[in-house]
Amino acid sequence: MNAETRPVDHVIAAARAFLGDRITTNSAIRDQHSRGEDTSSPVQPDAVAFAETTEEVSKLLALCHRFEVPVTPFGAGTSLEGHVTPVRAGISLDLSRMNAILEVSQEDMDGLIEPGVTRHQLNDHLRDQGLFFPVDPGSHCTIGGMCATRASGTNAVRYGTIRENVMGLEVVLADGRVINTGGRVRKAANGYDLTRLFIGSEGTLGVITKIRLRLHGIPEATSAAVVQFPDLRGCVESVIAVMQLGIPVARIELLDEVQMAACIAYSKLEGFQALPTLFLEFHGTERGVAEQAEAVQEIANGMGGLGFAWATDQEARNKLWTARHNAYWAGVALRPNCRGIATDVCVPISRLAEALLGAKEDIAASGMTAPIVGHVGDGNFHTVILVDQDDPTALERAWELDKKIVARGLALGGTCSGEHGVGLGKREFLEQEHGPEALAVMRSVKVALDPKGIMNPGKMFRN
Amino acid sequence: MNAETRPVDHVIAAARAFLGDRITTNSAIRDQHSRGEDTSSPVQPDAVAFAETTEEVSKLLALCHRFEVPVTPFGAGTSLEGHVTPVRAGISLDLSRMNAILEVSQEDMDGLIEPGVTRHQLNDHLRDQGLFFPVDPGSHCTIGGMCATRASGTNAVRYGTIRENVMGLEVVLADGRVINTGGRVRKAANGYDLTRLFIGSEGTLGVITKIRLRLHGIPEATSAAVVQFPDLRGCVESVIAVMQLGIPVARIELLDEVQMAACIAYSKLEGFQALPTLFLEFHGTERGVAEQAEAVQEIANGMGGLGFAWATDQEARNKLWTARHNAYWAGVALRPNCRGIATDVCVPISRLAEALLGAKEDIAASGMTAPIVGHVGDGNFHTVILVDQDDPTALERAWELDKKIVARGLALGGTCSGEHGVGLGKREFLEQEHGPEALAVMRSVKVALDPKGIMNPGKMFRN
Repeated sequence: MNAETRPVDHVIAAARAFLGDRITTNSAIRDQHSRGEDTSSPVQPDAVAFAETTEEVSKLLALCHRFEVPVTPFGAGTSLEGHVTPVRAGISLDLSRMNAILEVSQEDMDGLIEPGVTRHQLNDHLRDQGLFFPVDPGSHCTIGGMCATRASGTNAVRYGTIRENVMGLEVVLADGRVINTGGRVRKAANGYDLTRLFIGSEGTLGVITKIRLRLHGIPEATSAAVVQFPDLRGCVESVIAVMQLGIPVARIELLDEVQMAACIAYSKLEGFQALPTLFLEFHGTERGVAEQAEAVQEIANGMGGLGFAWATDQEARNKLWTARHNAYWAGVALRPNCRGIATDVCVPISRLAEALLGAKEDIAASGMTAPIVGHVGDGNFHTVILVDQDDPTALERAWELDKKIVARGLALGGTCSGEHGVGLGKREFLEQEHGPEALAVMRSVKVALDPKGIMNPGKMFRN
Repeated sequence: MNAETRPVDHVIAAARAFLGDRITTNSAIRDQHSRGEDTSSPVQPDAVAFAETTEEVSKLLALCHRFEVPVTPFGAGTSLEGHVTPVRAGISLDLSRMNAILEVSQEDMDGLIEPGVTRHQLNDHLRDQGLFFPVDPGSHCTIGGMCATRASGTNAVRYGTIRENVMGLEVVLADGRVINTGGRVRKAANGYDLTRLFIGSEGTLGVITKIRLRLHGIPEATSAAVVQFPDLRGCVESVIAVMQLGIPVARIELLDEVQMAACIAYSKLEGFQALPTLFLEFHGTERGVAEQAEAVQEIANGMGGLGFAWATDQEARNKLWTARHNAYWAGVALRPNCRGIATDVCVPISRLAEALLGAKEDIAASGMTAPIVGHVGDGNFHTVILVDQDDPTALERAWELDKKIVARGLALGGTCSGEHGVGLGKREFLEQEHGPEALAVMRSVKVALDPKGIMNPGKMFRN
């Protein structure tokens, strides 16, 4: 190797043969691939490669493996935990152009897609066939990114997370080999569950190039409702009761009074007050939906709920869920010049009141602004801690608050991440949560599959 | 090491210090641990160890690791694929005495148990608390064994398999280290999914010593029904229609006319004919159950179904499901002096009619007797091929038929095992199903976690 030529230059030169100008060192493009939507410091990759086929991904990885050049997969760049920041430079592998919907089977309610397909794109495609893909993290993410981070979101309480809705994967391994995991069957006892191993592996074990998804029939009836509470406790206790009674709500989302104020302002929600609030959705038959709504209303009334506001037509429902999906941006807009740090604690449902009320106390003590919003049916909630970019101490104080909230969640038998993943931001909690021996097992799996450590290095593990 | 002392003798001698007479070379006990309920040749272990604590398992595995002695975990011995046969002798590690139910939380609907707990034991314990554990393979298996083989059974169509109902595990690794995987949360994006890696690993990666289970509320209403059809096609098409309409049946089981004749004789089922039959169960609210049953009846009527027979009270339901659970034994009793080889094909639901009708043709062409029974809502069915133990050619002919049925299943996009696991019997299909590269990944995980290859050697992989 020429002493003046870096390994990555060999990769770039060789990759031009099959990628042409789809591998680029253009500074603006490298900049776009230097970070996600989190607060971690941006790092430019040496080059960005836009792959269009599995074969290209395979050839590129074989090259990177040979020259020991880091590879960081990139989808829509919506990560909140630094997953897409190429902390050791190398190649940012952009998969957004691999966005074909390859197969949809109405009969089997499954589909085969490329990783760059977004959930919006998929659901637009499916609508005419009476099907939908339920996993909904809110953002305009790619489904490949959702697989990599084990994403979930508002519908998980009813339909499961991405883990329960992926049947199989095509994966390019660190050395360029291509494997298929899982298949088209609803269940199997046929060897190690490699599909689940790659789901949530955050690009550290290989690159997902095809996804076999489980789809669902669009329910016969859908209705949505909003119920507000004079205090957070009644709101949380209602959620716990709904879950314990096994009412199959499709969505049950909590917004605290700070978040609700933000959403009213940002999304022009009319007729609501800045109070702790539940957004609900029911799916089923006409009768089933009515029965579920009745049962939830009864519970909410008993906990001080201030009556149900119905969003029956599609337009009203869309307005409601768009407001919910924009909660993060509404929160960030509460104060000028702010970015947000999102915590992602998930606890057993019986500890949810403690976790939420404790977080409120921590926030109050910190003097910071941090709206709370959550997929509370799963015990999962986010605090979006606002960081004034002109205040030199704000980021540090925000991380301190974040640590406090996470520590409380762990002490309550919870996890540091319900759905955003580990990335850079949650690495320090991982050993605390799993213990050193379990983490050693994860590392040994990493070494077995990526012996040269080229796949998204610096993520999940601290070294 | 003394040249006359085998490594296993060192293990036995050292283990006496903490197991006392719970490690034994008694020939009758070794015999009981030489096979499961399958047709593979029995192999006696050198010794059987009855562990009562995680610490004992850990100490024993550390010894076996040091002396490179094979360890084969043993639960209730109900494996149908040779999992518990210690093909390379060594220690059979019997976990049936680790059968404590350690915690049950009504609020969180979860529980912590030891691996030797059987599903009957657990459900008896839970009944008064309004909870149940749905995964039901029919046999008197241990839940540890169910985790190891990724079991499912009759309720999986509604409640998922063991994979979806385990939240976390305590596992003793090959070298004696103890790890905890997962936790008490409904979802998490917190590192590699080690829980799912051990579920279905068939004792080849470690020994499961504690299980955190997800439990479910006993439904407000339950009803069961039987519907018979003049032909298999109408029966299968009904199942496909039920699934495609998303009717949330709790159980939908198919018995072909041969199996039905066997069950009528064996379980004294009155009022039924030897015809293709569906056994159904509905869970939900009173109204929901009625609505589901109505929808299924309408479908069955349209496909030639001969009317619904209801089993409304608990006693009638128990009789029905006991008959279903004894289907294997009813089949084996069809002809004297027979054992059964169970195939376990699972296909996408759209291919179910093809797979079943094809299997019927294969059976007819073979001249053998093989009733068919299946968890058809998942696309999973078993043929129990009867092998006359006095006919020297029968076993070989049975395996030939088995291969034909599996090959057809694979060609239809299916798997060789929906729920019984790979063990000894399905090893040859594994590479065919996953391809050499995916199998190489499984092997590399195996080597990473069990470098000396002491954990249940000879299973899953052919060498």
